[in-house]
Amino acid sequence: MKELNIGLFGFGTVGTGIYKVLGSARNAHAAIRRICVHSLAKKRAIELPEGMLTDKAADILDDPCIDLIVEVVDNAEASYAIVTEALRRGIPVVSGNKAMIARHLPELIELQRANNTALLYDASACGSIPVIRNLEEYYDNDLLLEVKGILNGSSNYILSRVFDHGENYADALAKAQRLGFAEADPSFDIKGFDSLFKLVIITIHALGVYVKPEDVFAYGIATISDFDIRYAREKGVKIKLVAQVVKLDEGRFTLFVMPEFVAPGKYIYSVDDEYNGVVIRGECYDRQFMFGKGAGSLPTASSILSDVTARHHDYRYEYKKMSYSGRPVYTDDVTLRVYLRHPGPELPDGIKFEKITERYLSGDGCYTVGNISLASLRANKAILDDPSVFLCNIPRFFLDLD
Amino acid sequence: MKELNIGLFGFGTVGTGIYKVLGSARNAHAAIRRICVHSLAKKRAIELPEGMLTDKAADILDDPCIDLIVEVVDNAEASYAIVTEALRRGIPVVSGNKAMIARHLPELIELQRANNTALLYDASACGSIPVIRNLEEYYDNDLLLEVKGILNGSSNYILSRVFDHGENYADALAKAQRLGFAEADPSFDIKGFDSLFKLVIITIHALGVYVKPEDVFAYGIATISDFDIRYAREKGVKIKLVAQVVKLDEGRFTLFVMPEFVAPGKYIYSVDDEYNGVVIRGECYDRQFMFGKGAGSLPTASSILSDVTARHHDYRYEYKKMSYSGRPVYTDDVTLRVYLRHPGPELPDGIKFEKITERYLSGDGCYTVGNISLASLRANKAILDDPSVFLCNIPRFFLDLD
Repeated sequence: MKELNIGLFGFGTVGTGIYKVLGSARNAHAAIRRICVHSLAKKRAIELPEGMLTDKAADILDDPCIDLIVEVVDNAEASYAIVTEALRRGIPVVSGNKAMIARHLPELIELQRANNTALLYDASACGSIPVIRNLEEYYDNDLLLEVKGILNGSSNYILSRVFDHGENYADALAKAQRLGFAEADPSFDIKGFDSLFKLVIITIHALGVYVKPEDVFAYGIATISDFDIRYAREKGVKIKLVAQVVKLDEGRFTLFVMPEFVAPGKYIYSVDDEYNGVVIRGECYDRQFMFGKGAGSLPTASSILSDVTARHHDYRYEYKKMSYSGRPVYTDDVTLRVYLRHPGPELPDGIKFEKITERYLSGDGCYTVGNISLASLRANKAILDDPSVFLCNIPRFFLDLD
Repeated sequence: MKELNIGLFGFGTVGTGIYKVLGSARNAHAAIRRICVHSLAKKRAIELPEGMLTDKAADILDDPCIDLIVEVVDNAEASYAIVTEALRRGIPVVSGNKAMIARHLPELIELQRANNTALLYDASACGSIPVIRNLEEYYDNDLLLEVKGILNGSSNYILSRVFDHGENYADALAKAQRLGFAEADPSFDIKGFDSLFKLVIITIHALGVYVKPEDVFAYGIATISDFDIRYAREKGVKIKLVAQVVKLDEGRFTLFVMPEFVAPGKYIYSVDDEYNGVVIRGECYDRQFMFGKGAGSLPTASSILSDVTARHHDYRYEYKKMSYSGRPVYTDDVTLRVYLRHPGPELPDGIKFEKITERYLSGDGCYTVGNISLASLRANKAILDDPSVFLCNIPRFFLDLD
């Protein structure tokens, strides 16, 4: 079997992991020939052969010996430039950059078709759990009804510290940063953007429909307070940051990212720490659950390795469901039941419930529980992002399904 | 996209499920053209178009319009005859018959190669959970260390009734039979053969090595007693029927099916009722867990549908790992720690522990806990099958790993 010659872009945590894993996998039939980094001056954790590093993309892109590009650059713009240029030249790419992929999927699909090449990105959603590949290949039929899960390891780690270990939110966030589970600027994770990008990628492989990230309501845990945590504890539930895409009927589906009260007994209730867990619901098989490490150097590296091996067999995503007849259409015209914590007894300006079922007013804080439309949540996103407010989904939320 | 014309063999629970699911899946691009059954006289649950049924295999095998054979016959010999004949004629086959497949895998692989055709059987192991496909495609590298799980829904249902609902074993078995989870003769399930066949199939896709079912120690729950159940309850653990294949080191692996004491916190502890759950352990990703309905008409049918759809894209198992260098070799030269219940104070004739760590003697029953070699368990299988004896694995069992 021919050995694949890999040009690697990016040599941070994940890049280093890939280098290590490829070195130890005896039957990988692939080797890294050149690594392009931002700065040659930076000190590296492992010793590399002479001449392995370069800071010129052309040293890889122009090299006719390179069969495959693996791109794990920590910058969406740089990632976009490398990946699109490689695809234009007909060089297959494995990438883990969810933000870049989620934003540019239609163009990236078109580039693959036009240049008869492939872009694989299983590592971009749920690290080591093979969600994309399974949605594309195994759940490749009309039976799929819902994909729902915990897609962000950092925020889940923080929530686990709070709910399983009784820590307060600020301490938990600091600990996550210390352990490297959350970035120095953790907003990408805790504001729900990371989950959102993964959800957009999952949706195209689940239902064959691309939805722009900016058209999706994504709300994180950045404004959660001790008041909300106490409320959840009293009810015997945990708060988890949940991403979901759900078919409403034959013709319509919705998707969103939102904290959710999760009751014991639900599969995702026991997805703790930095783990990810995904529930796939279908018409015949009911619910299937996949669970594994969602982040980290080696889990991500092993996922990239699976994509590299798939390229040995010329595997590519076919995006089959995009050509299905009767694809459902995205809508945000659905009613959710939510918990909304707000600073005073009045609802924040602009927030309108369709129906209020509970109100709680006290000096410590106020909350309202009731039915509200997803479209109105999207329209009032700025108000909901205020630190004085926290929004949490109460399943089972599609009221017509109640 | 061309529509696949399917010839279906078998129209029992699963066959009927496939007929229903294919009828409702809008983008399946496949239709059942003819169904071959054992008896035309038998009353059927659904009405079929005139001329759909036949009792002559040749009506399907000789029909040049048939692109794919789906075989869900409830008889291993008949299954073998149909599948081998179809493959010899170059007709691709989807089959769910684990006993037949596990016994004849090397010949079936050779027939696929010689006749340039495909046999898919994801439905044969773990029903709706895509274990085979993921082992073949996604975990296609050297990093895999272990596959361990609950592969038999019937025995798991019975054990769940006992451990989660406090029923006694005889009542639970009767209830399983009444609900259709266990056959009138449940020995295939409760003696561990069903799990064994699935494990043999999993092993060839996990490690690239075929091990004959008769060379593997497979012990079920047929002789479990109230004494054993009480023992487990007192220790705060459940008894589960577990199948596992484990790499011992770079060069060796072992596999076996045995009841096991499972502690809370283990992934498989919460796999209850008729569900299956599989843990895949690897060097980089640690543990991944897949969970879903392992049996039943519709889950199995949806799994068969996934194989049918895969045939649209000419998918076949490549059995890549069989050509890997340095494949590990099967050994039963490993020491396990087990619990053995026996009728009198003496160990049954022939049973020799390497080391005994606990003995319990009473009028109600006696048990011995200690280290014993897997090879000696295999050699003394007949003794262990006696109703007066029950054997249960105590993990973490490979003592050199302790």
